[in-house]
Amino acid sequence: MFYGADYYPEHWPEERWEIDAKLMRDAHINIVRMAEFAWSKMEPKEGEYSFEWLDKAIDILSKYGIKVVLGTPTAAPPKWLIDKYPDILPVDVNGLTMGFGSRRHYCPNNHNYHEYTKKIVEAMTEHYKHNSNVIAWQTDNEFGCHESVCYCDNCLKTFRIWLKEKYGTIKNLNDSWGTIFWSQTYNDWDSVISPRRAVTSHNPSLLLDYKRFMSDSFVKYQKMQIETIKRIIPSSQITHNFMGQFNQIDYYNLARDLDFVSWDNYPVINFGDITFNIKKLSASVALSHDITRGLKKQNFWVMEHQSGPTGWEEVGRQLRPGEMRLWVYQSIAHGADAIIYFRWRTSTSGTEEYWHGILDHDAVPRRRYEEVRLIGEELKRIEKYVEGSVVNSEVALIRSFDNEWVFEIQPHAHGFRYMEQLKKYYNYFYKRNIQVDIINLWDDLRKYKLVIAPGLIMVNDEIAKNISDYIKQGGVFLTTFRAGAKRWDNRMNSTSLLGDLKDIVGIDIDEYGAIPTGEEISIKVGTEIGKASFWYDVVKFNTAKVLGTYESEYLKGRGFFTVNNYGNGKAYYVGTLPNDKILQIIMGKVLKDISLKEIPIKRKESVEVVRKIKESKDIYFVLNFNNEESSVILNKSMIDILSGQQVEKNLHIKPLEVRILIEK
Amino acid sequence: MFYGADYYPEHWPEERWEIDAKLMRDAHINIVRMAEFAWSKMEPKEGEYSFEWLDKAIDILSKYGIKVVLGTPTAAPPKWLIDKYPDILPVDVNGLTMGFGSRRHYCPNNHNYHEYTKKIVEAMTEHYKHNSNVIAWQTDNEFGCHESVCYCDNCLKTFRIWLKEKYGTIKNLNDSWGTIFWSQTYNDWDSVISPRRAVTSHNPSLLLDYKRFMSDSFVKYQKMQIETIKRIIPSSQITHNFMGQFNQIDYYNLARDLDFVSWDNYPVINFGDITFNIKKLSASVALSHDITRGLKKQNFWVMEHQSGPTGWEEVGRQLRPGEMRLWVYQSIAHGADAIIYFRWRTSTSGTEEYWHGILDHDAVPRRRYEEVRLIGEELKRIEKYVEGSVVNSEVALIRSFDNEWVFEIQPHAHGFRYMEQLKKYYNYFYKRNIQVDIINLWDDLRKYKLVIAPGLIMVNDEIAKNISDYIKQGGVFLTTFRAGAKRWDNRMNSTSLLGDLKDIVGIDIDEYGAIPTGEEISIKVGTEIGKASFWYDVVKFNTAKVLGTYESEYLKGRGFFTVNNYGNGKAYYVGTLPNDKILQIIMGKVLKDISLKEIPIKRKESVEVVRKIKESKDIYFVLNFNNEESSVILNKSMIDILSGQQVEKNLHIKPLEVRILIEK
Amino acid sequence: MFYGADYYPEHWPEERWEIDAKLMRDAHINIVRMAEFAWSKMEPKEGEYSFEWLDKAIDILSKYGIKVVLGTPTAAPPKWLIDKYPDILPVDVNGLTMGFGSRRHYCPNNHNYHEYTKKIVEAMTEHYKHNSNVIAWQTDNEFGCHESVCYCDNCLKTFRIWLKEKYGTIKNLNDSWGTIFWSQTYNDWDSVISPRRAVTSHNPSLLLDYKRFMSDSFVKYQKMQIETIKRIIPSSQITHNFMGQFNQIDYYNLARDLDFVSWDNYPVINFGDITFNIKKLSASVALSHDITRGLKKQNFWVMEHQSGPTGWEEVGRQLRPGEMRLWVYQSIAHGADAIIYFRWRTSTSGTEEYWHGILDHDAVPRRRYEEVRLIGEELKRIEKYVEGSVVNSEVALIRSFDNEWVFEIQPHAHGFRYMEQLKKYYNYFYKRNIQVDIINLWDDLRKYKLVIAPGLIMVNDEIAKNISDYIKQGGVFLTTFRAGAKRWDNRMNSTSLLGDLKDIVGIDIDEYGAIPTGEEISIKVGTEIGKASFWYDVVKFNTAKVLGTYESEYLKGRGFFTVNNYGNGKAYYVGTLPNDKILQIIMGKVLKDISLKEIPIKRKESVEVVRKIKESKDIYFVLNFNNEESSVILNKSMIDILSGQQVEKNLHIKPLEVRILIEK
Repeated sequence: MFYGADYYPEHWPEERWEIDAKLMRDAHINIVRMAEFAWSKMEPKEGEYSFEWLDKAIDILSKYGIKVVLGTPTAAPPKWLIDKYPDILPVDVNGLTMGFGSRRHYCPNNHNYHEYTKKIVEAMTEHYKHNSNVIAWQTDNEFGCHESVCYCDNCLKTFRIWLKEKYGTIKNLNDSWGTIFWSQTYNDWDSVISPRRAVTSHNPSLLLDYKRFMSDSFVKYQKMQIETIKRIIPSSQITHNFMGQFNQIDYYNLARDLDFVSWDNYPVINFGDITFNIKKLSASVALSHDITRGLKKQNFWVMEHQSGPTGWEEVGRQLRPGEMRLWVYQSIAHGADAIIYFRWRTSTSGTEEYWHGILDHDAVPRRRYEEVRLIGEELKRIEKYVEGSVVNSEVALIRSFDNEWVFEIQPHAHGFRYMEQLKKYYNYFYKRNIQVDIINLWDDLRKYKLVIAPGLIMVNDEIAKNISDYIKQGGVFLTTFRAGAKRWDNRMNSTSLLGDLKDIVGIDIDEYGAIPTGEEISIKVGTEIGKASFWYDVVKFNTAKVLGTYESEYLKGRGFFTVNNYGNGKAYYVGTLPNDKILQIIMGKVLKDISLKEIPIKRKESVEVVRKIKESKDIYFVLNFNNEESSVILNKSMIDILSGQQVEKNLHIKPLEVRILIEK
Repeated sequence: MFYGADYYPEHWPEERWEIDAKLMRDAHINIVRMAEFAWSKMEPKEGEYSFEWLDKAIDILSKYGIKVVLGTPTAAPPKWLIDKYPDILPVDVNGLTMGFGSRRHYCPNNHNYHEYTKKIVEAMTEHYKHNSNVIAWQTDNEFGCHESVCYCDNCLKTFRIWLKEKYGTIKNLNDSWGTIFWSQTYNDWDSVISPRRAVTSHNPSLLLDYKRFMSDSFVKYQKMQIETIKRIIPSSQITHNFMGQFNQIDYYNLARDLDFVSWDNYPVINFGDITFNIKKLSASVALSHDITRGLKKQNFWVMEHQSGPTGWEEVGRQLRPGEMRLWVYQSIAHGADAIIYFRWRTSTSGTEEYWHGILDHDAVPRRRYEEVRLIGEELKRIEKYVEGSVVNSEVALIRSFDNEWVFEIQPHAHGFRYMEQLKKYYNYFYKRNIQVDIINLWDDLRKYKLVIAPGLIMVNDEIAKNISDYIKQGGVFLTTFRAGAKRWDNRMNSTSLLGDLKDIVGIDIDEYGAIPTGEEISIKVGTEIGKASFWYDVVKFNTAKVLGTYESEYLKGRGFFTVNNYGNGKAYYVGTLPNDKILQIIMGKVLKDISLKEIPIKRKESVEVVRKIKESKDIYFVLNFNNEESSVILNKSMIDILSGQQVEKNLHIKPLEVRILIEK
Repeated sequence: MFYGADYYPEHWPEERWEIDAKLMRDAHINIVRMAEFAWSKMEPKEGEYSFEWLDKAIDILSKYGIKVVLGTPTAAPPKWLIDKYPDILPVDVNGLTMGFGSRRHYCPNNHNYHEYTKKIVEAMTEHYKHNSNVIAWQTDNEFGCHESVCYCDNCLKTFRIWLKEKYGTIKNLNDSWGTIFWSQTYNDWDSVISPRRAVTSHNPSLLLDYKRFMSDSFVKYQKMQIETIKRIIPSSQITHNFMGQFNQIDYYNLARDLDFVSWDNYPVINFGDITFNIKKLSASVALSHDITRGLKKQNFWVMEHQSGPTGWEEVGRQLRPGEMRLWVYQSIAHGADAIIYFRWRTSTSGTEEYWHGILDHDAVPRRRYEEVRLIGEELKRIEKYVEGSVVNSEVALIRSFDNEWVFEIQPHAHGFRYMEQLKKYYNYFYKRNIQVDIINLWDDLRKYKLVIAPGLIMVNDEIAKNISDYIKQGGVFLTTFRAGAKRWDNRMNSTSLLGDLKDIVGIDIDEYGAIPTGEEISIKVGTEIGKASFWYDVVKFNTAKVLGTYESEYLKGRGFFTVNNYGNGKAYYVGTLPNDKILQIIMGKVLKDISLKEIPIKRKESVEVVRKIKESKDIYFVLNFNNEESSVILNKSMIDILSGQQVEKNLHIKPLEVRILIEK
């Protein structure tokens, strides 16, 4: 199993490198990622490449058995390049250029930048193509981190070409966007705008297309890097470090061209939060893992794993003793095949001076180093049990970037966020330790017993058919308020308030409204009364059967929760955002339709249990995300592979402690 | 009576138009407003006019007995025009251009825009001058909506001309603005600035003049439109849709050149408010009606009447059953001669996708359509009673845009707003169902028994004389803290802290201070002790008599509330902002001086009763702005014109219900 | 003693001047400051100087025995100069020019501005060099008020020169800043940037150097003014009006070239504060006085002393009866040799219309004038006792601008501010009426018994040696968390987490972390348990002894408070920010080491007592900053120099009242 650290030899004197390598080896580190911010070191002046230092560092590391992932350094173009082509710099929504001095200071559509990217990537791959210590490549760094949107004139031109390819004729574009509204008709391609600052809000279809265009621009930019590497090293393994729940780029598209995906896992970055509660964080980190695993439907790497307090201007929380280990095992439980810490040693300069690594600024090995070493030792011991193990989910949640963007452009109710609704459903399963896959709208749904698509405001024929086919063959499907209200071009449906989903859910919407933030209305399922927020759809049921109703005011007795028999399956509709109490009842009803495989471990809600499968054997990761001791009850005796001992029934688990159990 | 909807045939296929017209007719609709955002449809390319579609729409509508108001489309210049003259785009306070892509993207002083405005207005009026179905014209749309301030170079030049006309010599300007402060003297007209962003705050006189200039610019721009229309159709009736309490343009000036005024009435646009209380809203909407009626001292139209949830990025509240009708009757009660809903059908594209109309996106007639139809039916029935009825007020409140702007520039105390004080006084009368006119500083005051001028910080000779004459002939006048402190050029008076009002109120100000926001001080009138906020004037009374004193600290015993006998009338001065309890006592004292006509209906505070007069008969609109049933007691028996029945004494009124009573 | 007002004759008609002078004389005023905003009056057009008006004003004033301080008018360059050289205008972080129309609209590095500054200063000094009524000069006005940072292209060029002088070679700069991080290496001087807006945060060393550069730019600009004046009037006394706790310019550097310093004392400028508490303000104003006195280690002037409500857009609090006198005596107690009120009469125009003076806009002498007159009378009477008296402190607090800037760039914990920590320590002494000097890092420490340096994150060899030498010879020193963590170039130390202070404090840091804002952890000293916030250093003591420990979680029992015997002295380390309760215990332990001279007056905490010395006699200023009467107990009988009476033991003091006592 790969176990490592992100390493920046260029930050430290050469004399130090061997000491570092030795310390790494002692901590069971066998991989480092390097060079992803070293452009100015590898090409200090245009065309003058300098890889000697990196060669040397790789040599030293390899002496200690440490392999290397090399990053292309394009997240930070050097100053000489910016000085030569200032138009590489991105431009903000006001038309103001963002200058040199931090990172990600490039427009993804800039031709000069593409050209120089190709040159440095070629130089690196040519230089290292025969170096067997370099075992993988990372493109750029954290695409979509910071506001990765450019409004420069060149982007505008490129956007017009992108639109032309998409719409064919300007009339199609006008029809699709509905530019007739407020007299915004474009007479030709050259008159189309990008959504720079206007007097007031832009057309929502324009806004969505610009988001798609920017996402595509980065995908295309990465693809060019990948093709360059593969041309020179056809067998190369290429990855990128994604960012969990970030959403500026459609991660499904960005993942498509990669061999495998990685992500950067910083569970504890709260800077100003008063009530620190590791339990609250664990569900969100689990979701990020599952999102990442869903990008290519396969295991992933953690390319940056938190190893100390994070921080730029402010310093985040210190990791308490044992906490790092807990996060590492959660990563592995959810599908991580490699754990690489960020970073080896805390930088003594630059913006990230306070983004701490395993070692502090003074390189004295202290508590965190010792923890890393012990985890490494342990992982080595249990490698044979966990390596290659996979998560096998029966439930899928659909996350659609396009739909998330629609709610970013128009949140409908103040503060409403697409992901908050998705999290509500995700957390239902998380609390019950039911494994969930996070998947794309076009993915094959047939392997799942239950598919949930919250916030599915925008669909098209193809998607509707995918869902319809799934249900017809027996699947159970659930969607929520606003489903189908919009066409794929972010215009409202003019034919039905449910669009192409109308027949599937078997209802009409008779009336709807936003619930102002902070207010709630009463709803009822069976005899239980609870609260709902943000939105209400008043359902007029056609073929569907009503299962839940509103209780408030003039809505009293009107339906919000329905089920429709459709083909061999069922389609549920939840026309509001219920509170946890009612959501539990709703999901209880839904889960009655299907039988999910049970986990033979009874646990308190606060303990996370993840089932993985290796060679058709179940492995259970039991993670105590509590500040207190907890316990679980086993239905059968198992082997605790960390201690090697057989365990029965009642199993006590200390705070922040982990058990990995395998059936005898 | 006119009853209608705002209609955008250009948004929908032609096949739909006749269906729409029929549905409208069925709902008793007899008027539509059209075309105010259809420039790109009427003139798709420069000089190529296309009115066929509009002709056809008007023809179809007229077949169903529906008349038309045409709007000039200048609130949204088309892209081809912006591409030809990019300098039409407005420039913000930082000097940054605001781009195409929403609406109101024009500088009101741009010569090219004036020229093209004239052309399209001429083309429209020439085309429709003989069309008898077009019965009125609307200029532009909602002047002063969004931040209608431009800081472009051309505005700067025009501002200098405006200033030269006003001040004659640069010395006069320097003297008036007091540019000697901080060495800001201008040596010639070409050196005068507009208040673009500076290191810190600008000269307040410059700021006020720029506000006046921008207001005048829009007035002038509209006047050019009006003159163009009148030249071609001398008998045309021209209006504009105002925006209630908006204040960027001096509405009195904007109204002057129009035949009648309209406004856009959206009572329920709260997006994030937790405690929805229709009662709170009703007073504010009533004020907006009264403001509108005061612009030309005559009845008005509601050109856009809310017919569903409003919304751009967020969606506002749904109108509950019966609510629309209640707002409609309130509009009529306060002087609306026409009710035109915004809009016929909810747009499926553009920024206002969620600004709902009578029909939803899918055009299925639902609850709101049915309510519109029933209101229409009812209005037809009672038309003969209410049409042409007028409000007749004995009390006037002065609203001065110039004074409001002064408090915008210098709020004095954090968060203090001119309108908040005015509302305090307005609400006193609203709660007692005493009709109030909102009037201008130069209006004839003699028809009123009581004139109140809160926040009258700035006066000039003419205004002081108007007030003085009014009181001398027997009027009762009340003004408040800071009255007269400033000259009409927004400089402080150097002669007296009360300026030209000193003799009228008969006091001096001995000391004054702001009360920090959130704090209160104690005040006393008679034996009642209450609280006051925002400001205190310590009064030194000359000819006046003190009626109320401060109770706090070193102010104890010093006067804040005085009355001065002046000519045959009285002038009251309230040197602080009292809380409701004390305001009630103050106004009680003031009202003792005058006898207002009583309404023969006793009602709970929460029921609004408005008296109107038609052919010297009193009509009472009784509006229950409550979520519960309420009741009123009649002093004499009346006819309920909605039911046609005679009603006596105790009259129960359901929530959101309306009664219109007329004396037998 | 100098007693005066800031006077703007140019704001008022000449006829008024003599009336003003007479009123001043009657109020015992003997000095005015003038002309510091009168450039456009003194040089209405380029090269056309006009001093007649000023000559006349000075003549009139001198007739009434009033001397003059002349200000150079460079804080407000006139419009003709800006029109001729628009590049004088400063540029903001986004690259946008800040326009004319307020004040301080100049780039301190602009060559044209330097040239024209020299011209006007020469013209003034040439004109007044023989005028004996002009007794002092003030440079500019409030350097560093408003955001005094410019990012223009010329500043960038000048910054590069500044850097070149500092670093010698570009390699040194790269090494010092650690530009290797994120590939920010500069290949030559012309490629170095200023920290204009980038995609995300800049390098912290760049940010600190830019702050230093801008500070130096103003210091250099002032120096040019001083040299110009001194060249023409070698004997001139030159000052500048500083701003207490403002921090954009290193005040120690700005003071160096001046003959004496002044400051502008506005204790009561709160605009929106709910709970007004004069007691809370008094400590902060005392600190500002002590900061000012520390700039040159000598007495100072108050060039602008509050005489009424302050205000621009909003109006601050009125000064209550007696309050002005209290603040005046506090000023004198802390070292003020002159009291000059801002301003004589409230301006009727301009941004500061509501920044009130002694007279209101209408020039009627009211309460505040009468108070000024009485204070003047009183001061004349006691002049012989207080003039030339000095504060003599045994305790010093180090305030370092460089260190303050580091925490501005990186606050570490959300909302943490360098000065807040310093104030905690200052207030400890303030509450006990122990006089404190606020001094610079390079000052001679040997005169103090105790030196405290909170927030000393950044040191260099020289500073460490200064501290070390001080302790070795017997001094007691205390520093706090993060001390020594950074090098003087704002990079982290790579050798030790305590840098050059490690041996002095005799500890290592074993672990550290930020405490999120709003949270607290428990700490213990002796048997007392209290709270701490913002940061925790876990101490590993080497030669030091632990005196206090953490109580929370995994930190329990680990040390945070230590003492180290070093040479003949002691070094204390406080690794967190304790609450007041624990700070009291900590300081109690520290003060046991030294014996401070006792004040022979027992007083309640809320009464401020300041000891000054004149001709080796102690004078006690007893100031009651309470809204209620208070009392003090004297250990020996004294003379109250205000009443001339002998006072014993129990002394009652009315609210806002002052006693000045001298030993018999």
